[in-house]
Amino acid sequence: MGIIVQKYGGSSVADETAIKRVAERVIKFHDNGYKVVVVVSAQLGITDMFLEKVFRLSSMPNERDVDMLLSSGEQIASSLLSIAVNEAGRKAVALLGYQCAIHTDNVYSKARIKKIDTDKILQHLDKGEIVIIAGFQGVNDYNEITTFGRGGSDITAVAIGAALEAEYVEICKDVDGIFTADPRVCKDAMLIERVTYDEMLEMAASGTKALNSRSVEVGMKHGLKIYVRSSFRSDDKNNLGTVISMEVNTMEEPVIRAISHSLNETKVVITQKNTFPATITDIFDIVNELNINIDIISDIALNGYTCVAFTMSKDEAYKTDELYLRLKTRLDNCDIQVEKNKCKLSVIGTGIKSTPGIASKVMKVLLDNGIDIEMISCSEIKISCIVDERYAEKGVNLLHDVFIVQKNALRG
Amino acid sequence: MGIIVQKYGGSSVADETAIKRVAERVIKFHDNGYKVVVVVSAQLGITDMFLEKVFRLSSMPNERDVDMLLSSGEQIASSLLSIAVNEAGRKAVALLGYQCAIHTDNVYSKARIKKIDTDKILQHLDKGEIVIIAGFQGVNDYNEITTFGRGGSDITAVAIGAALEAEYVEICKDVDGIFTADPRVCKDAMLIERVTYDEMLEMAASGTKALNSRSVEVGMKHGLKIYVRSSFRSDDKNNLGTVISMEVNTMEEPVIRAISHSLNETKVVITQKNTFPATITDIFDIVNELNINIDIISDIALNGYTCVAFTMSKDEAYKTDELYLRLKTRLDNCDIQVEKNKCKLSVIGTGIKSTPGIASKVMKVLLDNGIDIEMISCSEIKISCIVDERYAEKGVNLLHDVFIVQKNALRG
Repeated sequence: MGIIVQKYGGSSVADETAIKRVAERVIKFHDNGYKVVVVVSAQLGITDMFLEKVFRLSSMPNERDVDMLLSSGEQIASSLLSIAVNEAGRKAVALLGYQCAIHTDNVYSKARIKKIDTDKILQHLDKGEIVIIAGFQGVNDYNEITTFGRGGSDITAVAIGAALEAEYVEICKDVDGIFTADPRVCKDAMLIERVTYDEMLEMAASGTKALNSRSVEVGMKHGLKIYVRSSFRSDDKNNLGTVISMEVNTMEEPVIRAISHSLNETKVVITQKNTFPATITDIFDIVNELNINIDIISDIALNGYTCVAFTMSKDEAYKTDELYLRLKTRLDNCDIQVEKNKCKLSVIGTGIKSTPGIASKVMKVLLDNGIDIEMISCSEIKISCIVDERYAEKGVNLLHDVFIVQKNALRG
Repeated sequence: MGIIVQKYGGSSVADETAIKRVAERVIKFHDNGYKVVVVVSAQLGITDMFLEKVFRLSSMPNERDVDMLLSSGEQIASSLLSIAVNEAGRKAVALLGYQCAIHTDNVYSKARIKKIDTDKILQHLDKGEIVIIAGFQGVNDYNEITTFGRGGSDITAVAIGAALEAEYVEICKDVDGIFTADPRVCKDAMLIERVTYDEMLEMAASGTKALNSRSVEVGMKHGLKIYVRSSFRSDDKNNLGTVISMEVNTMEEPVIRAISHSLNETKVVITQKNTFPATITDIFDIVNELNINIDIISDIALNGYTCVAFTMSKDEAYKTDELYLRLKTRLDNCDIQVEKNKCKLSVIGTGIKSTPGIASKVMKVLLDNGIDIEMISCSEIKISCIVDERYAEKGVNLLHDVFIVQKNALRG
């Protein structure tokens, strides 16, 4: 049997009891003959606790310092897990980013992996050891610690899996896998057995908190199978989870794979009399100055007015005041509205591109049920609508019912 | 002006308020023109918190794992201090043991420094930056993290000071310096202005908790001045502290520098009829098997009995049960007594070797005041007596009064 990579998140290693349970699960795979590489996140709450300390010291902390600080969270978790595995009588070794060695570019707080030297990992595996790697961190050309941003341990796991040509990567979570909608909002949500990389990327971008999108990109690039499973279930038969891979080979494929939603989106609408190409350039200059990732954009001319609208995810919400100020100061004769508390509802599935009429059906379902669609955006495999946040739950359930539950009933 | 090294202990960086205060103190020296290198310990309580986690997972944890875990305490403290200094508008850079680079041998938990590459530190200093080094840690030949044991950050500070040929090293503590006796036990205890390396080594070995003995050895080897000062006082005139150096050049030197005491010593007494050289070899074989550092040893033959006695410091106390068991099992016809709760009272000063009669005076003072001396040991600059722990406070005060207070009064 070959190499597998298992990643355990913060709640899976939250305390000593949880760590012992993870040690047992890891050992089970090891004893079954796999060469096991484990990637761990910081224990639940540690990263936030560190950030609180940081922001009591500085409002604009040096990112190099923050990366060094945060990376110690994964250092703590990986050494504790190694202690637990060693205690259970198997040989384990904990390795930090620079020891692995995970080489990155020089961008602190969202570094990208350039190369992984697998020699050290392979040497330990060949000695029959379980290798435990501190997630979320690498080392740049200057021997400085860099981190990968939120969800960065997923990236470590998939990148290590690709570098080692692992059989598969398991992302072990406190849920059973990826669902057709958020189970907290939609009681009919079902576990998805299989999903393509493309669909998973769209879902991650649309609010499904399953795993970091960059890790899916890395998996896709190397054709590496990624399982999302529960770290709490030990019986494999009841822990199939969701597998993310290149293709989903079933005869009759559902058109729609899942309904995602994302709350706390901000919508910015800028209106000016007459057309204004120069103004549009100015708007996006300002957006770029603030390093804002904008999401859905629309640009409409109507009755002699031109209107540019875009949305920003909740991660960017803290920049809205500054954005408004700069737009207001630098644009002439424009009406600027910033509307918070919007929801992005997304319908995702590779079947969309081959099935006509999905977009109109999505709109009809929402409008017929009294939900205003404020903006809409379509790609080959995703249709997203911006609606008011009070319609979030209703919208998810309506779309899930029409596109998932009823279709499954027909196929069943 | 040249390079200085300042070391701040756990209570000096205990929380964000303390860290800001340290940042201010460091900046003051920097702004006065010094090239400042700072070494920090883990925040107060962190190391113990880590060890609690460890011992909930394993009774005999892998030392490599423990070193990786514990070293993150200093990593956290150094990055937080760097954030605070950067926030205050000065440039700071935090460096870990492997980044410095502090090369050690391969002994986990009590590694010894082999070599420090100062290039990186000097480059940062030359750019006008304040260099903040995570104490207590180094890196071995295999790129693994090693630590130096309790008080290890003192060793980092002095070793860095020696490697950089610093003007001096400051050990910044929550007390004003080193005292002639423990101020919690002896209300007349006075701050010592100057002390030699030799005296400091004897004091550290005798219970004075001022700084790690190995750091004093390193300082002595390189003739590097070490100041022990308060990190809480900012006015230099009232913060002279204690300086440890090769010689103390004052015309009239006190014979005795300080009275140290150490509690929780264990005394082991083994008695056998007739002489027993073979038994003595067996005793010390068993002591060595358990890697016990024994302190005072005596060996007396009396009335046809031979008696071997030795003491163990409180750090070794957890080994006493196992020691008793092995002695009992493997020695024939011996009476073995293990007595806990002993106190070692020590009188320390370079004047001892040149002043006859100090030992007899020490004994007389104690015996005249009803304190039984159970064992005694003399060196050129130290006289230590083992007494029952209930006499600790009384003994310290008696000796302090006779050898420090009365002598000072005469000289004054």
